[in-house]
Amino acid sequence: MRIGIAALTTLPEVAPGDDVARLIREAAAREGEPIDAGTLVAVAQKIVSKAEGAVVDLRAVTPSAFARQRAEEWRRDARLIEVILRESRRIVKMDRGVIIAETRHGFVCANAGVDQSNSGGGELATVLPVDPDASAEGIRSALGCGAVIVTDTFGRPWREGLVDVAIGVAGLEAIEDCRGRVDRHRRILASTVVAIADQAAAAAGLVMRKADGCPVALLRGVEWRAGRGSGRDLVRPPDRDLFR
Amino acid sequence: MRIGIAALTTLPEVAPGDDVARLIREAAAREGEPIDAGTLVAVAQKIVSKAEGAVVDLRAVTPSAFARQRAEEWRRDARLIEVILRESRRIVKMDRGVIIAETRHGFVCANAGVDQSNSGGGELATVLPVDPDASAEGIRSALGCGAVIVTDTFGRPWREGLVDVAIGVAGLEAIEDCRGRVDRHRRILASTVVAIADQAAAAAGLVMRKADGCPVALLRGVEWRAGRGSGRDLVRPPDRDLFR
Repeated sequence: MRIGIAALTTLPEVAPGDDVARLIREAAAREGEPIDAGTLVAVAQKIVSKAEGAVVDLRAVTPSAFARQRAEEWRRDARLIEVILRESRRIVKMDRGVIIAETRHGFVCANAGVDQSNSGGGELATVLPVDPDASAEGIRSALGCGAVIVTDTFGRPWREGLVDVAIGVAGLEAIEDCRGRVDRHRRILASTVVAIADQAAAAAGLVMRKADGCPVALLRGVEWRAGRGSGRDLVRPPDRDLFR
Repeated sequence: MRIGIAALTTLPEVAPGDDVARLIREAAAREGEPIDAGTLVAVAQKIVSKAEGAVVDLRAVTPSAFARQRAEEWRRDARLIEVILRESRRIVKMDRGVIIAETRHGFVCANAGVDQSNSGGGELATVLPVDPDASAEGIRSALGCGAVIVTDTFGRPWREGLVDVAIGVAGLEAIEDCRGRVDRHRRILASTVVAIADQAAAAAGLVMRKADGCPVALLRGVEWRAGRGSGRDLVRPPDRDLFR
């Protein structure tokens, strides 16, 4: 089995109102990169948020007292903390200057996905797209590719460093359930439930280098199951989450 | 930037004492897949463990009372639970029939990495290699490739499904620290520390399909930093782990 991953390198800066699918199509054409039913397109959340106007001008944010107190303790921007709180449905862990929050979508990540880097400079911060699945599907149908994932970079407990994961999914099943299948010795694979959308996101992350500004990658040769997957499929339900 | 990932499909079943590097070299030659300084080779922990004899015959295991009680409650094999306990330095979470343990290496994972699937059938279970970095380096120097990662499939809190991660590393820095670098708007990337070895493991996981028995993948085009990285670099130290 063979997979190829190519970053698109000529996307322009994305601004609110831009048609991301069109920008991708034009960059791919410019670079001689075909996009078809066998292509899985990975799109960084950042440009989806920008295009959809999921951007906050911090100058317009009045921080709450709680935000101001945390900002003073942690020497962080109170307005940014205020935005993080507004994007959070639940605070999972708040310690040592770090906020791990559950977003309205159910994702658990640092700062509820609020990000000030690559956000247009100045006092702008991006928040996660309102509906990353819908964003993914919009790009997928416009491009005519097989599948789309919207990716973001998350930390994780117990392990250092960040990895890319899928927060929005279109055209494929996000989780591949191998249970019931057997291994080479006819033993049932009792617990092999693979987060294929996250694996694809991480693979795309190898070419989508933050400092180089390559927010889109084309993956070819990935074997996925066509379906109506969702970024929410990758979120562990509370009753099955030992670390809630 | 472009990456290619190819699974080796003709590796034979691996047995204790086998020379994994030789098996990889022979399979690669058979399949016309070059291996050179630009190749990152991903090797599934399972075949490393088998070759190194990190295999336990459950028939020789006498479970402790604790293991027998848990086995009865959870309807699991008491001997397997006993092996899991022996492989654990610390129990992180033990609930609802699940054991999340910290291994002697410091990895936090279900069942301390003990696995009965694809282990040779019958009553055999594999345990993690004693020194996955050394295993990786042995393969790397024998193959003459640029880098090697030994991968395993782990679950993670808050997210469904398993993903592949690197437990052993040779020839590259496991973590790419982009802090101090700037984004397109000259804003310092304050917290971009990427677990590149884990991203590569996940990418390899897209082709190393458990039920198909493809335990080795060749990645080309990955840009890594040469160095003496370690699987331990991917483990968050206790004082920085909010979820310890």
